[in-house]
Amino acid sequence: MLMKMSSLFLRTLREDPVDAEVASHRLLVRAGYIRRAAPGIYTWLPLGLKVLAKVEAIVREEMDAIGGQEVHFPALLPREPYEATGRWSEYGPNLFRLKDRKEADYLLAPTHEEMFTLLVKDMYSSYKELPLALYQIQTKYRDEARPRAGLIRGREFVMKDAYSFDVDDAGLERSYGLQRQAYRRIFERLGLEYVIVRAMSGAMGGSMSEEFLHPTAIGEDTFVRSPGGYAANVEAVTTPAPEPVDHADLPPAAVLDTPDTPTIDTLVEVANRLHPRPGRPWTAADTLKNVVLALTHPDDTREIIVVGLPGDRDVDLKRLQAAVEPAVVEPATEADLKTRPELVKGYIGPAVLGPNGAPRDEAGDGAAGAVRYLLDPRVAPGTAWVTGADAEGKHVFGLVAGRDFTADGTIEAAEVRAGDPAPDGSGPLELARGIEIGHVFALGRKYAEALDLKVLDANGKAVTVTMGSYGIGVTRAVAALAEANNDDRGLVWPMRVAPAQVHVLATGKGEEIFDTAERLSRELEAAGVEVLYDDRPKVSAGVKFADSELLGIPLSLVVGRGLADGVVEVRRRASGEREEIAPDLAVARVRELVDEALAG
Amino acid sequence: MLMKMSSLFLRTLREDPVDAEVASHRLLVRAGYIRRAAPGIYTWLPLGLKVLAKVEAIVREEMDAIGGQEVHFPALLPREPYEATGRWSEYGPNLFRLKDRKEADYLLAPTHEEMFTLLVKDMYSSYKELPLALYQIQTKYRDEARPRAGLIRGREFVMKDAYSFDVDDAGLERSYGLQRQAYRRIFERLGLEYVIVRAMSGAMGGSMSEEFLHPTAIGEDTFVRSPGGYAANVEAVTTPAPEPVDHADLPPAAVLDTPDTPTIDTLVEVANRLHPRPGRPWTAADTLKNVVLALTHPDDTREIIVVGLPGDRDVDLKRLQAAVEPAVVEPATEADLKTRPELVKGYIGPAVLGPNGAPRDEAGDGAAGAVRYLLDPRVAPGTAWVTGADAEGKHVFGLVAGRDFTADGTIEAAEVRAGDPAPDGSGPLELARGIEIGHVFALGRKYAEALDLKVLDANGKAVTVTMGSYGIGVTRAVAALAEANNDDRGLVWPMRVAPAQVHVLATGKGEEIFDTAERLSRELEAAGVEVLYDDRPKVSAGVKFADSELLGIPLSLVVGRGLADGVVEVRRRASGEREEIAPDLAVARVRELVDEALAG
Repeated sequence: MLMKMSSLFLRTLREDPVDAEVASHRLLVRAGYIRRAAPGIYTWLPLGLKVLAKVEAIVREEMDAIGGQEVHFPALLPREPYEATGRWSEYGPNLFRLKDRKEADYLLAPTHEEMFTLLVKDMYSSYKELPLALYQIQTKYRDEARPRAGLIRGREFVMKDAYSFDVDDAGLERSYGLQRQAYRRIFERLGLEYVIVRAMSGAMGGSMSEEFLHPTAIGEDTFVRSPGGYAANVEAVTTPAPEPVDHADLPPAAVLDTPDTPTIDTLVEVANRLHPRPGRPWTAADTLKNVVLALTHPDDTREIIVVGLPGDRDVDLKRLQAAVEPAVVEPATEADLKTRPELVKGYIGPAVLGPNGAPRDEAGDGAAGAVRYLLDPRVAPGTAWVTGADAEGKHVFGLVAGRDFTADGTIEAAEVRAGDPAPDGSGPLELARGIEIGHVFALGRKYAEALDLKVLDANGKAVTVTMGSYGIGVTRAVAALAEANNDDRGLVWPMRVAPAQVHVLATGKGEEIFDTAERLSRELEAAGVEVLYDDRPKVSAGVKFADSELLGIPLSLVVGRGLADGVVEVRRRASGEREEIAPDLAVARVRELVDEALAG
Repeated sequence: MLMKMSSLFLRTLREDPVDAEVASHRLLVRAGYIRRAAPGIYTWLPLGLKVLAKVEAIVREEMDAIGGQEVHFPALLPREPYEATGRWSEYGPNLFRLKDRKEADYLLAPTHEEMFTLLVKDMYSSYKELPLALYQIQTKYRDEARPRAGLIRGREFVMKDAYSFDVDDAGLERSYGLQRQAYRRIFERLGLEYVIVRAMSGAMGGSMSEEFLHPTAIGEDTFVRSPGGYAANVEAVTTPAPEPVDHADLPPAAVLDTPDTPTIDTLVEVANRLHPRPGRPWTAADTLKNVVLALTHPDDTREIIVVGLPGDRDVDLKRLQAAVEPAVVEPATEADLKTRPELVKGYIGPAVLGPNGAPRDEAGDGAAGAVRYLLDPRVAPGTAWVTGADAEGKHVFGLVAGRDFTADGTIEAAEVRAGDPAPDGSGPLELARGIEIGHVFALGRKYAEALDLKVLDANGKAVTVTMGSYGIGVTRAVAALAEANNDDRGLVWPMRVAPAQVHVLATGKGEEIFDTAERLSRELEAAGVEVLYDDRPKVSAGVKFADSELLGIPLSLVVGRGLADGVVEVRRRASGEREEIAPDLAVARVRELVDEALAG
């Protein structure tokens, strides 16, 4: 059935929607692809649904190609399985929870690890049945605190989630690799630029995880990359520890009065005046800043910790959070500080912290003992520092790590900066932003253990299955595609996901124009080309062109005044190229351009 | 990718699931098509999902063929639109309600009239843009009191819901007719027997509605049909009123003591003894039973009513409920009866009821005045009755309707029985049961008025749009197909919806058997036939045949011992027919049988 603009359920908008912050949201709404139903919840209109279906089809083909088997789980699920893995509470307010008429607890699933684990447990029992890869393309729910950017962070969204089941680690590695490779093909077929970055597993658990990020300035995730190919999201960046420095020749540390040092800069100035270092003046990077934080552990106990890092860097709470999972970190409060009078605000030094500090609490009641002290890896053995002397108005100068103080360990808590060296030596890092369009997790045995998924191995012994979990935000991928493919006049869809391949425009008034445009539309359809035909009789050519550019169909075929001279015009949306051609040759030419684009 | 049993995510069960009451539920679970996740909530396994996708594709094609445009709405929706139409509360406990993190009210939509109405209001403004038909295939939620029979009455299910928008009644009639015709084609293509029955619109509102029922003994809906083609669900059956009877010659009514008449039968016996009717003895059908009921109106007021009907029939509460919508009816309680002392239990008669009873409450405070009295249409003017005399131990004999008493109106509250005459004179009714697989509603202007959907007509005047709403239970249709197509060995899918078209079985031990089976499987796929290949190496022929019959794929191709003699066997699941054929001819023969079945 030929899709005609005169009857298509579509209303393009000249004005941007007031709540639209990013191009994809603005344009998808203006071009009539989606419509907001509630915050973070969207309705798909006819053209939008066609794009979504094409993206889904590509995802499905690549999942099938690696032997993935499609299933479909409910979105409405009982509490118990999520209780068993702890996620019923771990998800906090992000989980939509509800009760049925019998007051039983249900949730709207944000992801389905538990259900897949239970299903496989229910059906399989032998290693011979593994490996197994299952997937679904299904609607997910997350009650985001700040739904934003249209489809990019929604509360109801479509996800492809896949799960692999293997009997051993080598199997998981193979399954993970297959999925990773399928993801590469999916995003390549979608024409969606991506960077694979190392990621932290976070609440999902597991040993290894990578994100597929689509680089864009409006992305919510910050990541780093080096010229030599290192890439990681900021949470996963590790800091290369400097080589230990020989400190045999270093003078002893000196404690001095430093009354007027409210900032790192003033402290550096004082250091260079009162305790100069020959040949290498102190800088902010030589000061050791000790930051007090509070951890809430899963058992609800609260612990005060101190993180020591060079004074020229701030703590990045997101990185620190990722490092302390499953504990939750926040800056220490005044109340927290009162429990630790040895921490002299502004003058905290290593002397009262960690292994250097008060004797450990052998009784284990948690109240006594030194505060746990974790150091940035840059505070390497043999390096000398200016830091607090644990007394009001006093700092210590030339305190040498390893000689004068130690810590309970290192931690990745400092901010990452452009120019920092990549941990693998592949050059200086640059920072960029991206949208997370895929995420692969080697989950390991966390879910299988919690839900007791075992199979018999070759020796008849019950072994816990090891799993992977692999997600693609399908609706988010549509947004990323719109974000990557637009200009000031509208959307510019790649051929593979466009809602139609050619937009036939009848511009002008003669009956012959409309007859020819309709005939060519039908011939194009007969040639297997997907057509949208703008047959609106009383709409000006200007409005038709503007609508066409807003809709962003890759090719247009304009049947207008030129017809009298025996020509129609083929336009390419992306490049703006135009070519005049005889009507009789137009169908073959469009077919050719479509094929070129699909092959490219 | 060839679908092989050795890796297919499938586990057939020899035992029926304990909670399965009907064949479709039992077999779909045993054959590994679906799996229960929670009461009334199912997971679709690979084979099940293939059937579901085929049913969806047929529905989609027929919706597209009548110009329907597909969209997709969220399932999670805000309260406000449903509040505006009253359905937020009317749905009662059937609606899943929840709150988001900001304590805003949401629901999981059971159907989407409100959202479609608002979407069209948001986008359209002129009669020129109508008619419009939109549809979606989408997951719906209803918190059923008694989820049952697997997919037949679920709490999360897939529905195709369509909505039409017209500027006038003639347009709605056309739109309704188009949808109705599309439904006929859908069920015909699915090979699913159906009966179109008149239905009540109920809570949906509107003027006209018909159900598509699939006749089956396990159906939840009772319907009637006559030899002449009348069909209606029981709620919608109207009772032909007898012609008024000339009562000029009838004797006056007599009130008599009737102490020992605990039942209708004893009353009839007493009537024939104490007050015989010449030539035509009293029967139970001549007694007038007055049943007290309580209505709760939408404004929460409670009203006592009495329904009078022949003593040989019971009140059918479902019919009565449909007749009093939107009020809710229930049998009167003892407490209700106390408010109406004039109702003498066991001896209620027309004298104290309706227009015959206490004077009307002119003040309108609802407390005084006669109880509203509604009569079964069989109590026609001129008919004589034996009924209560409103005094303990007394009945009245020969009370004539129209002469001795009247009522406030008639009502369809009596049970319908096999043999009752069809209201259109097309013969005696038979009762049957069915599953509701589709429902078409001419909604009219109820939703458009509640949500103010207007367009400008040809004269520039704003007119309220008139709507239709059209639903097909897609997951339920899969259940109905399984219900209609099975035998004692398993499922027997029609070719158009089968998860595969041919089941290739390698039965035997020789390598040649497996090589040939795999080669034929691949050749069949190359010939466009959908194949499931049972390649399991250590599974006996008996188990393979049993699994194959349970799965119900229409054709099977058995490569086994006969191969040594140069033959393989083609079997038809439905008829059991078998034919031996040379392996080289098997692909063409299967292709031919598939084509025949698809064409049929």
